[in-house]
Amino acid sequence: MGSGDIVGIGFVGLGVMGQPMALNLLRAGYPLTVYNRTAARAAPLAEAGASVAVSPRAVAAASPVVFVNVADDAAVEAVLFGPEGLVHGLAPEAVVVDMGTTSPAATRAFARRLAERGCTLLDAPVSGGEAGARAGTLSIMVGGPQAAFVRVLPLLEVLGRNIVHVGESGAGQVAKACNQIVVSATLMGVAEALTFARRQGVDAARVREALLGGFAYSRILEVHGRRMLAGDYTPGFRARLHQKDLGIVSREAQALNLALPASALAAQLMNALVASGQAEADSSALVQVIEQLCGLAPDKPADS
Amino acid sequence: MGSGDIVGIGFVGLGVMGQPMALNLLRAGYPLTVYNRTAARAAPLAEAGASVAVSPRAVAAASPVVFVNVADDAAVEAVLFGPEGLVHGLAPEAVVVDMGTTSPAATRAFARRLAERGCTLLDAPVSGGEAGARAGTLSIMVGGPQAAFVRVLPLLEVLGRNIVHVGESGAGQVAKACNQIVVSATLMGVAEALTFARRQGVDAARVREALLGGFAYSRILEVHGRRMLAGDYTPGFRARLHQKDLGIVSREAQALNLALPASALAAQLMNALVASGQAEADSSALVQVIEQLCGLAPDKPADS
Amino acid sequence: MGSGDIVGIGFVGLGVMGQPMALNLLRAGYPLTVYNRTAARAAPLAEAGASVAVSPRAVAAASPVVFVNVADDAAVEAVLFGPEGLVHGLAPEAVVVDMGTTSPAATRAFARRLAERGCTLLDAPVSGGEAGARAGTLSIMVGGPQAAFVRVLPLLEVLGRNIVHVGESGAGQVAKACNQIVVSATLMGVAEALTFARRQGVDAARVREALLGGFAYSRILEVHGRRMLAGDYTPGFRARLHQKDLGIVSREAQALNLALPASALAAQLMNALVASGQAEADSSALVQVIEQLCGLAPDKPADS
Amino acid sequence: MGSGDIVGIGFVGLGVMGQPMALNLLRAGYPLTVYNRTAARAAPLAEAGASVAVSPRAVAAASPVVFVNVADDAAVEAVLFGPEGLVHGLAPEAVVVDMGTTSPAATRAFARRLAERGCTLLDAPVSGGEAGARAGTLSIMVGGPQAAFVRVLPLLEVLGRNIVHVGESGAGQVAKACNQIVVSATLMGVAEALTFARRQGVDAARVREALLGGFAYSRILEVHGRRMLAGDYTPGFRARLHQKDLGIVSREAQALNLALPASALAAQLMNALVASGQAEADSSALVQVIEQLCGLAPDKPADS
Repeated sequence: MGSGDIVGIGFVGLGVMGQPMALNLLRAGYPLTVYNRTAARAAPLAEAGASVAVSPRAVAAASPVVFVNVADDAAVEAVLFGPEGLVHGLAPEAVVVDMGTTSPAATRAFARRLAERGCTLLDAPVSGGEAGARAGTLSIMVGGPQAAFVRVLPLLEVLGRNIVHVGESGAGQVAKACNQIVVSATLMGVAEALTFARRQGVDAARVREALLGGFAYSRILEVHGRRMLAGDYTPGFRARLHQKDLGIVSREAQALNLALPASALAAQLMNALVASGQAEADSSALVQVIEQLCGLAPDKPADS
Repeated sequence: MGSGDIVGIGFVGLGVMGQPMALNLLRAGYPLTVYNRTAARAAPLAEAGASVAVSPRAVAAASPVVFVNVADDAAVEAVLFGPEGLVHGLAPEAVVVDMGTTSPAATRAFARRLAERGCTLLDAPVSGGEAGARAGTLSIMVGGPQAAFVRVLPLLEVLGRNIVHVGESGAGQVAKACNQIVVSATLMGVAEALTFARRQGVDAARVREALLGGFAYSRILEVHGRRMLAGDYTPGFRARLHQKDLGIVSREAQALNLALPASALAAQLMNALVASGQAEADSSALVQVIEQLCGLAPDKPADS
Repeated sequence: MGSGDIVGIGFVGLGVMGQPMALNLLRAGYPLTVYNRTAARAAPLAEAGASVAVSPRAVAAASPVVFVNVADDAAVEAVLFGPEGLVHGLAPEAVVVDMGTTSPAATRAFARRLAERGCTLLDAPVSGGEAGARAGTLSIMVGGPQAAFVRVLPLLEVLGRNIVHVGESGAGQVAKACNQIVVSATLMGVAEALTFARRQGVDAARVREALLGGFAYSRILEVHGRRMLAGDYTPGFRARLHQKDLGIVSREAQALNLALPASALAAQLMNALVASGQAEADSSALVQVIEQLCGLAPDKPADS
Repeated sequence: MGSGDIVGIGFVGLGVMGQPMALNLLRAGYPLTVYNRTAARAAPLAEAGASVAVSPRAVAAASPVVFVNVADDAAVEAVLFGPEGLVHGLAPEAVVVDMGTTSPAATRAFARRLAERGCTLLDAPVSGGEAGARAGTLSIMVGGPQAAFVRVLPLLEVLGRNIVHVGESGAGQVAKACNQIVVSATLMGVAEALTFARRQGVDAARVREALLGGFAYSRILEVHGRRMLAGDYTPGFRARLHQKDLGIVSREAQALNLALPASALAAQLMNALVASGQAEADSSALVQVIEQLCGLAPDKPADS
């Protein structure tokens, strides 16, 4: 499928993730119509050649495929079904691709409501952070009908590299929740290990090196472990977003009667990290909470 | 340094890890003198050409370098300083290499006592499990004097691939404790994520695939995640040994006033796993504890 | 203030708690108008002399003071502001007393919306379970304006014994959340202690007796500890309600960036209890989750 | 039984608990022979009329009943079986009463070794803190043979009020461990609740009052809750001792394959409390760890 098959693409939500993703679609040659609640954030897209619409409804009217990347369940609902929502402009057969992190339960409900009007919702949340959005190297976990997935795959390939159709509607959001569960548990382990080493008087950087070669290897140990050693918490993936995602895990766990003690612990530590004033730091700053608990002053980068 | 520089090698402790390690040294051409408390376990080594000694003391008398791989701090102490211990036979300048998992505090004390007699103790615990011991692909984390490390490095290179001199005496054991902290936290995360996916009605194998391509990647997700999906808990690394190692972490944490909540949680789940009768299973069977808590019958392998 | 000062009382929500509370008001001589979504539950009240209204709006039209005791935030919102909600029938100066467990944030929002119409919302959640509701011995934690509290105090004194005006709107719900935090942590402690004793081969009943005389004394150890020893989990306070309340704590904790690790752990164990099929059991059945984790079959009552 | 039946009493270990206990025995009219490793601590006893012995052995020679109150398992072992230990002076039929907190496993082993010499060890750890020791109002949990318990009961009644013979040897220590499990879990609950209230902007003192009247009542909420509100952490029971006792729980849990997640969490928070410099504070200062995690500066007493 070339760019000719999908005449126009819509993009609603031009935040720290959405803006670089929309730019990548534009640069790949797709005609783009965008909307953002705070209009100023649409300016860089307009300069790069995108049309700016006055509402999600107007985006929908111009686009058989619309990407959405907004903050939370309530924002997705407003974009889809609000008074000026997509639903009022979408053509039958249109596909909406929600790339934000939404709860699986809400996603499934939204998909049903769109299906009643002949449209399709794909849930397609991403992993890879702001850097991955800019570089077009995101991991994308997709839930929803196979046909719609095949139809938008060429567009997703502009945005990311590791694109998996996980299953039915909601399965992408479930995979994203699983991703955040694994990442937060691994962050806790790396944070505790490096703090253990420091308080034992052992060079934590050497310990990390030793561990990278064996079964303890993870990308978190490699990438975020380095951030912890350097004390450099430039995001990356912001603590407040990780906190939000663990809130989704917590609510789903309660709804399904799941006991997830490690995830629940990680959520509390993430709350503590945000409480300490680090909402906008990379979530690997979690190590500071462990350091504090262990009586260590936070690690300082060498020269700053 | 060739095998000529170290005339004879000693090996005390021929358990599931020690036996294949000793065999690898023998196959590499090193003359080997071995001892095991249960004499029968020395038979395969004898058949392969090793000399079998009647005591650690006798091993020491024949070997300027002695490897030790026994169960716990008390067993190491007995091998080193018991009535027929190594210390009564070691030549000055001899090096003892403790490859088991011993507490950092005990290791440092043992090293001091050996140093008083002119000998050197290296702590050199390993990661990689029974398969790694057989294949000679262990990760080895070493603590102790640089000169002794350089001297035994060619021997360690027979046993493993990723060999890091972490620091002073005890630093190898600290790195091993860190390894177990990271591995157990990651196991919890993978176990919770796969159980979350299953209880959401989503194909856990697809979720694992999606996660392998992003920041959630870890060797635990790759290797142990596969075991969890298959329900095949052939060790690998036995639950009772992981439990023992987390006990070391817990005691060191108390001694140094460290709060390590994720490691403490992992220790409790590992206790539960052993209580369920799975002491000899691979520690990735931890997922069964989470499944039980979440109201799932343990996952069954497809056809067995 | 006698029963003459408040001519008619309304009561919406006649579940396991609401029904006995409404009966107690009726027996104390107050003319009562009631409503329940499932009309059959109003029958015992009608037989005892209450008027049965067709909607919350109709209750409000007859009653300057209306009690509400429904399941959750959404149900309170529907009763207050739905198409046939109280708000459409309340006289100015009316007081609504929400005796259910509602989130502090939602309570404050509801109170503001009622205040805009000249009415007052008191949050007055209770502790003491079904037995306390029947006996009129509930603890009642009240938030909202002092004048309204004074006005309804004689009615509250019919329902409970320990009635505290905690503070402004929402403060009653905050106290209730605190109550559930304390109770669930204490339950965990008692459950772990009794299981520890049993697995040590020591008579858990004797241990409980020994502890009752010292600083470990709590009503939970006394009352719920006895239930755990007897294996009798007749509610009491149902596990699914405790689970729901801990969900409120969890969401408030995230909203305010609070790290509450013990409460988060209790929430997971309560999820596990419900997952095991014990949603309707007294929440002290939590001990069964600990017993399971410790490899014990659940304690059986002597003769059944 | 009057004081005449037991001619002389011995007391080894005159620390913060032992000294006031020994004084109470002396004041009750019992002739007392004492020993303390640091001799200066025996001076107040000597002034009050006690004989001071040069070793535990010498105490044993003068006393058919000897109380021991020393720091840990190793210290108990030294007092009992060291070169100048009690065992070398005890008459057959003598009873040793260990009032410190010792691990159940070690206690049972000590009891067996004493029994081989015809002597009896009772484990009789206490709860009630320094104030209870001075006032003679301790709770005492006793394990060991019934006959020996009956024999020393009049002496125990001098020291405490709530004296329970829990069971066989070790049962007293098991009960003490259970006491510390319950107390630490309750402390966590009270700490989290009061912090939750404060961060909600609600008067935590009013919340505590409201909770005291219901099922959340505990002596911890009453006594230690008041300390938390006042920010006054004068012991009481010192954090480092609570930490030590939770270490016993942790080791016993591992030895018996018990999963005790709340106790494990409490142990980590107690480690954090000690790490923060509060080893000598009352263990209710645990609330400071929660406050810190929740972004609150520690509560300050009003004017001091």
